[in-house]
Amino acid sequence: MRAAVYYGNQDLRLEDVPEPEPGPGQVKIRVSRNGICGTDLHEYYDGPIFIPTEPHPLTERKAPMVLGHEFAGVVTAVGSGVTDVAEGDQVAVEPIYRCGQCRPCTTGRYNLCQSIGFHGLMADGGMAEHTVVPSFQVHKLPDGVPLELGALVEPMAVAHHAAVLGNVGDQDRALIYGAGPIGIGLWFALRSMGLTEIDVVEPSETRRKSIEALGARTLDPTSQDVPGLIAERTKGDGVDAAFDAAGVEPAVESALNCVGERRPLVSVAIYDRPLSTPLINLVLRERRIQGTICYTSEDYRAVLDLMARDHYDFTGWVDTVPLSQVIDQGFEELRAGRRMKLLVDPTA
Amino acid sequence: MRAAVYYGNQDLRLEDVPEPEPGPGQVKIRVSRNGICGTDLHEYYDGPIFIPTEPHPLTERKAPMVLGHEFAGVVTAVGSGVTDVAEGDQVAVEPIYRCGQCRPCTTGRYNLCQSIGFHGLMADGGMAEHTVVPSFQVHKLPDGVPLELGALVEPMAVAHHAAVLGNVGDQDRALIYGAGPIGIGLWFALRSMGLTEIDVVEPSETRRKSIEALGARTLDPTSQDVPGLIAERTKGDGVDAAFDAAGVEPAVESALNCVGERRPLVSVAIYDRPLSTPLINLVLRERRIQGTICYTSEDYRAVLDLMARDHYDFTGWVDTVPLSQVIDQGFEELRAGRRMKLLVDPTA
Ligand SMILES: [Zn+2]
Ligand SMILES: [Zn+2]
Ligand SMILES: [Zn+2]
Ligand SMILES: [Zn+2]
Repeated sequence: MRAAVYYGNQDLRLEDVPEPEPGPGQVKIRVSRNGICGTDLHEYYDGPIFIPTEPHPLTERKAPMVLGHEFAGVVTAVGSGVTDVAEGDQVAVEPIYRCGQCRPCTTGRYNLCQSIGFHGLMADGGMAEHTVVPSFQVHKLPDGVPLELGALVEPMAVAHHAAVLGNVGDQDRALIYGAGPIGIGLWFALRSMGLTEIDVVEPSETRRKSIEALGARTLDPTSQDVPGLIAERTKGDGVDAAFDAAGVEPAVESALNCVGERRPLVSVAIYDRPLSTPLINLVLRERRIQGTICYTSEDYRAVLDLMARDHYDFTGWVDTVPLSQVIDQGFEELRAGRRMKLLVDPTA
Repeated sequence: MRAAVYYGNQDLRLEDVPEPEPGPGQVKIRVSRNGICGTDLHEYYDGPIFIPTEPHPLTERKAPMVLGHEFAGVVTAVGSGVTDVAEGDQVAVEPIYRCGQCRPCTTGRYNLCQSIGFHGLMADGGMAEHTVVPSFQVHKLPDGVPLELGALVEPMAVAHHAAVLGNVGDQDRALIYGAGPIGIGLWFALRSMGLTEIDVVEPSETRRKSIEALGARTLDPTSQDVPGLIAERTKGDGVDAAFDAAGVEPAVESALNCVGERRPLVSVAIYDRPLSTPLINLVLRERRIQGTICYTSEDYRAVLDLMARDHYDFTGWVDTVPLSQVIDQGFEELRAGRRMKLLVDPTA
């Protein structure tokens, strides 16, 4: 079968590889769509970062590796002992491997597992015609949720998890920094929690137009004084939660000037530079910066429920590219910022 | 009467000023002791910072100003309408002025009042023979709590409030960075919450010895690998809460390497430099940095209750200096790090 195999920095090869078959407890999936995300770009242009060069403790795998951790497809075979999934099921995959024994795992927070692994980074992933996953990673798609959307459950779950950690109520006012896929996912997640007062801060006009078309209200930090506006609108109280899905310093700075007392700035971006904002800005209003990463099955279930109720709108910001053009039409276009979210079609 | 009057940067004058008399709703106090703290030093050496040079919205006062916001004394007169305090009462003062109308004020968090003021910074304070405060700032000392300790309620309340925001349980493991007065206060506050597994990280041998004498366990970050030790002791889980009462970058860095998943680093230090730690360190374990400032009357009551039960031990780290020597024996000694906590005796 055809697959996009990661060998190392800027070395992703389209290869013919043996079709994997499911062992005990495993499920074989014919991949319908697989999303390309920032993590994949990071591995390709700056990596290897997550992809192990020594065998991973949980999967015992290392590079070369088939990429792809955001995917959905149809079950074509199940291994022995698998009873809850059957051939023909349409499924989305929650790509986390966990040890099951560390404190995070035993307290239901396996997204923080001390030896966490991901399908598509620590095991051969979804940028291929087929992939084999452990059955515990499988979520059935509710009736009426098309396979094409299944590949978007993963990034929407990341955003949903971040929204939950914002600890908001339906009367709350929120700010989202960044209108990329996670920012959009945050907007939908917060809407599902009943919030109506949400502003999305985004410097790119294209991205503002794109999220506005979904119904969102936006602010342009290049021409508007966001903290000043928020102070005015809230009579100095500030917003009840801010979410940084931009991962750039001006966003964090601005957010810390907008968040109200005892309220969080939730950091969902992979932000690997120092934070230049003095901590005193946190201290004086007893605010907090809350980190958030990935999701658990609760977020998957919540997103799938919302998808079944047609809550998400993927119009205008999601496109499909053929696996055969994954570099040129995929990675390069995303890196250049010409596309927002791309799904790979492994059959093309 | 004699008072230490702040005129500006490094200009604190011992002067004879008119004795203040209580207006309606006010209480006149003969000051027994008034603590000197980091904020006072900051005003003196680097200020004015909090002391207004224009009339403060709540107190209508500006420099020159009698310093001193940590004090206790004996009530010598009350203004009209004051019924809950009487001449002869021994009291500690909670020096916060608040507007009563902003959101923090109306939700019981007046330590975050948008126009907060402090007695001793925005009104003439306790480094004087007498001072006059609004009656709502007055807390009666429980029987058996000596006046000399009353001046220590304020810093102990700061630490108590920070401990509360750490959201700890009695089985939790905590790390305190810095064994100054707030670090010591944190240790006593956490002990009062039932914690037994507490380590105090402090580079100064003098300070380590001092807090060890109170019963605390210490770590020396100059000779011990604190994150390594904590990882070993907790099998990689990390501590349940860390408290930064040091306000230096190595402390924040070390703390962020020691805090467990979904746990807080509580920042109680006035830390006005950028934070060089990348936010990614927060994100990967869903940790948070929680700011904390001052206290409310709940913390005052908690600390006074603990003092009544003899919970605090001020042996070896608190000394008294005469008001007449407040600069030489007070500010200069503290700045040089030769004393840890000094109380001013206004009668000497
Ligand atoms: Zn991803
Ligand atoms: Zn685990
Ligand atoms: Zn103080
Ligand atoms: Zn107020």
